[in-house]
Amino acid sequence: MDLQPVVEMLRRFVAEREWAQFHDPKNLAMLLSSEAGELVAEYRWVPNTESDAHSHDPVARARIEDEIGDVGMSLLLLCDRIGVDLADAMRKKLLLNEERYPVATSKGRSSRPVPGSSS
Amino acid sequence: MDLQPVVEMLRRFVAEREWAQFHDPKNLAMLLSSEAGELVAEYRWVPNTESDAHSHDPVARARIEDEIGDVGMSLLLLCDRIGVDLADAMRKKLLLNEERYPVATSKGRSSRPVPGSSS
Amino acid sequence: MDLQPVVEMLRRFVAEREWAQFHDPKNLAMLLSSEAGELVAEYRWVPNTESDAHSHDPVARARIEDEIGDVGMSLLLLCDRIGVDLADAMRKKLLLNEERYPVATSKGRSSRPVPGSSS
Amino acid sequence: MDLQPVVEMLRRFVAEREWAQFHDPKNLAMLLSSEAGELVAEYRWVPNTESDAHSHDPVARARIEDEIGDVGMSLLLLCDRIGVDLADAMRKKLLLNEERYPVATSKGRSSRPVPGSSS
Repeated sequence: MDLQPVVEMLRRFVAEREWAQFHDPKNLAMLLSSEAGELVAEYRWVPNTESDAHSHDPVARARIEDEIGDVGMSLLLLCDRIGVDLADAMRKKLLLNEERYPVATSKGRSSRPVPGSSS
Repeated sequence: MDLQPVVEMLRRFVAEREWAQFHDPKNLAMLLSSEAGELVAEYRWVPNTESDAHSHDPVARARIEDEIGDVGMSLLLLCDRIGVDLADAMRKKLLLNEERYPVATSKGRSSRPVPGSSS
Repeated sequence: MDLQPVVEMLRRFVAEREWAQFHDPKNLAMLLSSEAGELVAEYRWVPNTESDAHSHDPVARARIEDEIGDVGMSLLLLCDRIGVDLADAMRKKLLLNEERYPVATSKGRSSRPVPGSSS
Repeated sequence: MDLQPVVEMLRRFVAEREWAQFHDPKNLAMLLSSEAGELVAEYRWVPNTESDAHSHDPVARARIEDEIGDVGMSLLLLCDRIGVDLADAMRKKLLLNEERYPVATSKGRSSRPVPGSSS
């Protein structure tokens, strides 16, 4: 799964429309947040126990994939704007999480710290 | 930027902790939404005109990269759970956006449709 | 449940700290979004079927009430800044929703339109 | 600004449609998050310096008020479901914030702690 071609498509898309002027990091963070809200909306009335099946319903799946595309593009636009390597940022955070949630104490337990209280 | 190694690290991380039971698509959408909220928080008091510089301040940047890592991982976890190829989802949506926002009418204009009103 | 006393407390709180300069509507919308993310985080690993009980667990409830307070204050700050009457905005939207979701076709059905597709 | 009449309208609206079955706290938190995302979307391309004026543009204002109504209703639905008094939750949190951000050290400074790092 190589993201480089998508990054280049995105750059051209933005350049052709002269949208870089609107794409400062603050605005892109807001874009990401609103797109994440649309993705959440796809699951808000679906019970946990039906959410896997819902994700494979053809009509719902098309919308979900569409929203995933939007969230992914928002994130890539932000990374590209500020010079963060997305794969590297994930790798670093995952290594941190491996320390933060040791297998011995985390196995099978959902009671992870509330976000922010530890990050 | 190849995401496959990160996907594999994530799978192992989740498997070792037996967290797949908590990672149904509904919960992962909520995870993504809360992580996006933390990223937005990094920019909420920063004016547009200072948000590029803020993104390069070492202390802020470390936090921002950390939150980008969290958002990226949430998104990858969801994609992996439901079998969506992230790069492909972005490519498809970008092609759609190229039709939706023709260069001729979109160039230099921020007044794009409100999200949802057209997706 | 009269919100006026809270609005006045909020105004004094902001005035004493000279924070109105940071509280433009864009920043307040971001504040609200990040606070909503923290509230969502409280429920992300809790199954639907346990989320009522979770809301009454004393430790969780204190955090949830805390986040509800933050979300409510963000919303009131925005309303106060731009001169929107919150109760009135809700009443108007509820009247609209009564038309949009007629009892005859909506009763007992969760399959309401995706947000944005109709608003 | 008395919210009680709106709460009663909301209760009747939900009861008539038999929607309480979908309105567990988890789903309502997701509803709130997606509505907050729609409100953020209204400001994402608007610079800080234009966001007050934008909020008074008649066309934008109608949409913003609409989204504020949605966010407010989501929050009230959650409060009503779990038995939290919204005004009281805000008052409590504001008292806490008065301690957390003393006037002496907070006056005119936007560099408040990142959300979560202190709540």
